[in-house]
Amino acid sequence: MARKFKGVFAALTTPFVREEISFNKFRENIKKYNRYDLSGYVVLGSTGESVLLSDLESEKLVAAAVESALPEKKIIAGTARESTKLTLDFTNRLADLGIYAALIRTPYYFKSLMNRKALKRFYITIADQSKVPVIIYNIPRNTGISVDSHLIYELSSHPNIAGLKESSGNISFAGEIITRLNPDFNFLTGAGSVFISSLLQGASGAILALAAVVPGLCVKMYDLFQEKKMEEAQRLQLSLIPLNKAIIQIFGIPGIKYALDLLGFYGGLSRSPLLPLDKKGKQEMGRILKELRLLKR
Amino acid sequence: MARKFKGVFAALTTPFVREEISFNKFRENIKKYNRYDLSGYVVLGSTGESVLLSDLESEKLVAAAVESALPEKKIIAGTARESTKLTLDFTNRLADLGIYAALIRTPYYFKSLMNRKALKRFYITIADQSKVPVIIYNIPRNTGISVDSHLIYELSSHPNIAGLKESSGNISFAGEIITRLNPDFNFLTGAGSVFISSLLQGASGAILALAAVVPGLCVKMYDLFQEKKMEEAQRLQLSLIPLNKAIIQIFGIPGIKYALDLLGFYGGLSRSPLLPLDKKGKQEMGRILKELRLLKR
Amino acid sequence: MARKFKGVFAALTTPFVREEISFNKFRENIKKYNRYDLSGYVVLGSTGESVLLSDLESEKLVAAAVESALPEKKIIAGTARESTKLTLDFTNRLADLGIYAALIRTPYYFKSLMNRKALKRFYITIADQSKVPVIIYNIPRNTGISVDSHLIYELSSHPNIAGLKESSGNISFAGEIITRLNPDFNFLTGAGSVFISSLLQGASGAILALAAVVPGLCVKMYDLFQEKKMEEAQRLQLSLIPLNKAIIQIFGIPGIKYALDLLGFYGGLSRSPLLPLDKKGKQEMGRILKELRLLKR
Amino acid sequence: MARKFKGVFAALTTPFVREEISFNKFRENIKKYNRYDLSGYVVLGSTGESVLLSDLESEKLVAAAVESALPEKKIIAGTARESTKLTLDFTNRLADLGIYAALIRTPYYFKSLMNRKALKRFYITIADQSKVPVIIYNIPRNTGISVDSHLIYELSSHPNIAGLKESSGNISFAGEIITRLNPDFNFLTGAGSVFISSLLQGASGAILALAAVVPGLCVKMYDLFQEKKMEEAQRLQLSLIPLNKAIIQIFGIPGIKYALDLLGFYGGLSRSPLLPLDKKGKQEMGRILKELRLLKR
Repeated sequence: MARKFKGVFAALTTPFVREEISFNKFRENIKKYNRYDLSGYVVLGSTGESVLLSDLESEKLVAAAVESALPEKKIIAGTARESTKLTLDFTNRLADLGIYAALIRTPYYFKSLMNRKALKRFYITIADQSKVPVIIYNIPRNTGISVDSHLIYELSSHPNIAGLKESSGNISFAGEIITRLNPDFNFLTGAGSVFISSLLQGASGAILALAAVVPGLCVKMYDLFQEKKMEEAQRLQLSLIPLNKAIIQIFGIPGIKYALDLLGFYGGLSRSPLLPLDKKGKQEMGRILKELRLLKR
Repeated sequence: MARKFKGVFAALTTPFVREEISFNKFRENIKKYNRYDLSGYVVLGSTGESVLLSDLESEKLVAAAVESALPEKKIIAGTARESTKLTLDFTNRLADLGIYAALIRTPYYFKSLMNRKALKRFYITIADQSKVPVIIYNIPRNTGISVDSHLIYELSSHPNIAGLKESSGNISFAGEIITRLNPDFNFLTGAGSVFISSLLQGASGAILALAAVVPGLCVKMYDLFQEKKMEEAQRLQLSLIPLNKAIIQIFGIPGIKYALDLLGFYGGLSRSPLLPLDKKGKQEMGRILKELRLLKR
Repeated sequence: MARKFKGVFAALTTPFVREEISFNKFRENIKKYNRYDLSGYVVLGSTGESVLLSDLESEKLVAAAVESALPEKKIIAGTARESTKLTLDFTNRLADLGIYAALIRTPYYFKSLMNRKALKRFYITIADQSKVPVIIYNIPRNTGISVDSHLIYELSSHPNIAGLKESSGNISFAGEIITRLNPDFNFLTGAGSVFISSLLQGASGAILALAAVVPGLCVKMYDLFQEKKMEEAQRLQLSLIPLNKAIIQIFGIPGIKYALDLLGFYGGLSRSPLLPLDKKGKQEMGRILKELRLLKR
Repeated sequence: MARKFKGVFAALTTPFVREEISFNKFRENIKKYNRYDLSGYVVLGSTGESVLLSDLESEKLVAAAVESALPEKKIIAGTARESTKLTLDFTNRLADLGIYAALIRTPYYFKSLMNRKALKRFYITIADQSKVPVIIYNIPRNTGISVDSHLIYELSSHPNIAGLKESSGNISFAGEIITRLNPDFNFLTGAGSVFISSLLQGASGAILALAAVVPGLCVKMYDLFQEKKMEEAQRLQLSLIPLNKAIIQIFGIPGIKYALDLLGFYGGLSRSPLLPLDKKGKQEMGRILKELRLLKR
C-alpha cells in the first residue's frame, strides 16, 4: 500500500505565550492555513521547535493539529528521539492520535557511531513496528549527520518507509538516487530555495518552513511546475530566495515567527534558549517582505 | 559558597539488559567503584547514554546512584535538555533526589543560533534558579558547538556556576582562560589523553570515561601529579593513551562496556541505535588491555 | 565591452608520460575536442592538475592550446597564485600568449585571513591591471574557502570581472545572487550534476570536467535546454549524474583520465602525488560508461 | 646517521618593503636572533609567507639566511610544492644552498585524494632522493589535511625522515605516537600554547612563530623544562598564551609583523592579499605586549 506525498506541506511553528504553548493560537493558525491548497502540515518538525517541547506538550499539539486541520490535509509529525526504543514508543503514541506519517530525523548525538549500518538498523526496526509510514529526515545543518545515497536506496524498498525529506539543499543528491529508487518512494525537498530544481530532479513535493510563511506562493510554484510553465515557476522561485535564506540561514525560527506576525498569522516568540529577533533583524525581514509586495511600504 | 571539585570523577555507564536498564547491575558497579579513591560519579553523562533514556528512567538512575554511592562521593548528574525551561525543571527534580551538582551541556540543535549571547542567557537563567551548582559542559565532538573563552570568563563569576567540564581536548583553551577565572571556578577536563597536561595548565580535576574503565590508574595519575612526581605521572599518562583513544574516538560506549565486562564490572550492550562492538573491535580492546597488563595474555 | 561566456567549456586534462607533460598528446586531444560544439577550453584548471605544474610548463601548455584550438574556441586559463603580485604577473604573461580570459581561484592557504575585504582587494587589484577579463573561481571542495554572495555582487560591477565559475554545487547560491547581478556578468557552473538546474537558475553556461569526458552529451544537454525541451534535458542530466559523481567526488582526475583512455582520447596517468586508479576503480568506471552505452559491454 | 632537532627554532618572517622582499632587513633580523640561544631558524615556513613567493625569491632568501646565521644555527627550509617532482627539485636546490633539513607540508589541493597511501608514497619518494633530512609538516589549520598517527609511525623508520612538525595543537596526538616511534625521530611542536605540555608528552623541541616574536622567553621556557622547574615553566607558558593566540589564531602574520616592529625587529607589511593589521588589532597587540612587560605602558 503506497502512500503518496505530493505537493506542498507547510512546516508549522509552535506558538508560545510567555514560554508556554498557546494551543488556541496554534488552532487559529491552522484554520488560516486550511484556506490554501496545501497538501498537509508537519507538526513537531525543526520549525516547530520540537526539541524544546516535552512529550506531553508534543502529544497535545498533535491532537490539536489533527482536530483543526481539514480532513483532506495530511498530518505528518516529527517523532524522532535519540534511541530506537523511545522513537518507536513515541511514534506509535502519535499514530494513535491520528497522524498520517512520521518524519524521523537521524539520531545524531553519537555522531561517530551513526554509520550506515547503525542508521539502517534504526530505520528498519522502527519501520517494522511503526503503525504509520516512516519518512526519513536528513538535515545535516542541525544534526551534523548526512545520510548517504546507498542507505536511502536500501531503505527505499521497505514497505513502511514512504520517503525522504531532504533538507541538505544538495540537489545532485536527489538526482543521484531518484532514478534508482522504488517508484513509490517519495522524495520531498526541505530546501525552499531549490524547490523547482528539486521537482525537476524528480521530487514529488516539499515540506517547507517557507510554506508556513507564504503558503500561497509555495502552492503557486508547485502548480506552475505541474502546468509546465517553467519560466514563470522559476521567476517565482528566484524571487523567494531572499526570504527563504533569511528564515533558514540567517534568522531561523525567530525570523519565521516575526514574519508570521507581520503577515496575519500568530508568530510570537520562540522558547528559550532561542532569542527574539533583534531590531536589525526585524527591519531586514520587513524589507524582504515589502520587496515581495507582501507588505505595504 | 564555593564548592570544590577536585580529583577524579568517573563518568558512569548505564547498564542495559535487553534494552532495559538494570538498576541492580548499576548499583553493583557503583559498589565496586566505591573501593577506589574517586571523588565522585557522573550519572547521565554522554558515557551514560543519557540521550537514549526517558525522564523517568533518568530519575530512577539518579536515585539508585545516590543510594549506592558512599556518602563522601559527590554525585554529578547530566541534566541538559534543549530548552531552558525543561533543563531547569529536570535539574531541580534531580536536585531534590540529592545530586551535588548539575552538568549541563550546551544546547545544540539550532546550531547557527547558539551564539555567545544565547548561551550566556541559557546558563544564567538556569544558574539563577537551579537548586544545585551548575557545571558547563563543552563537548563539540558530539554537539558541534564550542563555548568560547570569553563566555566562560563571563559566566565564571556567577555564584551558582561552579565550573566547566571541557571535553574538546584543546589544551590551550584551558591555558587561555584559567589565569583569568574566578579562583573558585573549577576547570575539569573531560579528555583522558591529556589529563596530566590539563592539570599542569591549571585544571582542578577530571570527569573521565577512562575512570570508569581504569579507576585505579586514573586516581594514581592524579596522585602522582599532586606529589609532583611528574615523570612517573607522564609515563602513566602516555601508557593510557591507546586505551583512551579506543574508548573515546574509535569504539565509543560499546567499547567502554566491553572493557568493563573484561575487567570485572558489568558492561553489557548499549541501547539501540548504538551497535554492539564487533569481533575485530573486541580483539583490539582485548589487545589494548593486555598491553596495559590489566588482562592476562 | 562585455564578453559573453555561453554554452559548454571543457576543463582539459594535462597529459603526462612518465611524469612529464606530453604536449603532443595534449594537442591531439584538443583536435578531437575541436569536432564538438564546445564554446571553448579551460587550460590549467583543477582538472588540468595546474597546481602540480611549474610556471614554464604552464606557459608551454597554454601556447599549445592556443595553437591547437579552432579560432572560434575561447581559451580560458587558470592563472591563480597565492599572492596578488604573482597572480597578476602570471595572468599577464598568459594574456600575451593569447588567452581569452583568466580563471582565478580564491587564495586559500591563509584561510582565516581570507575574509571578504581581503578577497575583494585581491580581485580588484588583479582586475584593474589584468590584460584579459577575470573570472572568479569558487571551489570550496579544494580550497576550503567560499566566496559569499555579497562579495560577488560587489565585484560583478567591475568592468574587467567577467563572471564567476561556481563549483560548490550549491544551486541556491546561484539563485540568490543572479537576479541582483550586472546583466553582463557571466555565471558559469562548475558542477556537472546540476547543470540544467543551474541554467534554470540563470547560469549562462558551464565549465565542466564532465565535458572533457563526454563533450557531445554536455553540449546536447545545453542545446535541449535552449530549445526548451526540459524533460529531455533533465533525463539526460539524471543519466549523467553517476559519471559526474565518479569523476568528481569518488575518483577525481585519475578517474577522468582512465575514462578518457577508454573513450578514445589520451588520458594516461596523473602526476604524483596523485595515484593511478586502482583495479576496483577501473571496473567501476568501465561499468558506468557501459551503462551510458558509451562502451560496448 | 641520526640528526637531532632539540630546543627552540624560530619560524622567521619574510620582510617586505612595498611588496618586494628586503633581504637587508631579513639579514638584520637574523643578526638580532643570533644573540639568543635558539637552535636554528625556519625559512620559508607558513610564517615566512612562503606560498606568496616565487621560486627565485625563495632561493635568495635561503641563501641570505645561510649567510647571516651563526654557524651553529641550523637552517630548516620549507620546500613543499603540490607535486612530488617539483618538491624534490626544489628541496635539492635548497640543499645545495646549505639548508640542514627540509620541512615538507602535506600536499593539500586535491584533498579527497590525499589519503594515507598517497601521502606515504609522496614522503618516501622525496625522502629517498632528498639530499637533506625531511621533516613532515602537519598543519591542518591551513591545509585541511591531517596526517594520521599510523602514517607517522610508518614513515618514522625511514632513515632520511628526521621528524614531524605538528601544528594541529592536538596534544594527545603526540602522546599517542611518541612511545611507538623510532627514538631518533624528532617530534617538534608547532603550537606555542602547548609547548610545555608537548615536551612533557615527549617532544624534543619546537618550531614556533612565537619564537620569532619573543625568542628569549621561548628559550627560557625550554630551559626551565630541562631544569625540571615545572611550575615556573608552566607559569611562563600560561603567560604567553594570549600572545600566541593573537599571532596565530586572531591576527596571523600581520599581527606577528606588527609585534616585531614594536619589539625592535623589522616587521613591516605582509605581501598581498594579506592585509595590514587594522587599528583595533594594533591596539590589542600593544596591550598584550604591555601585559607581558615587553613594552612600557
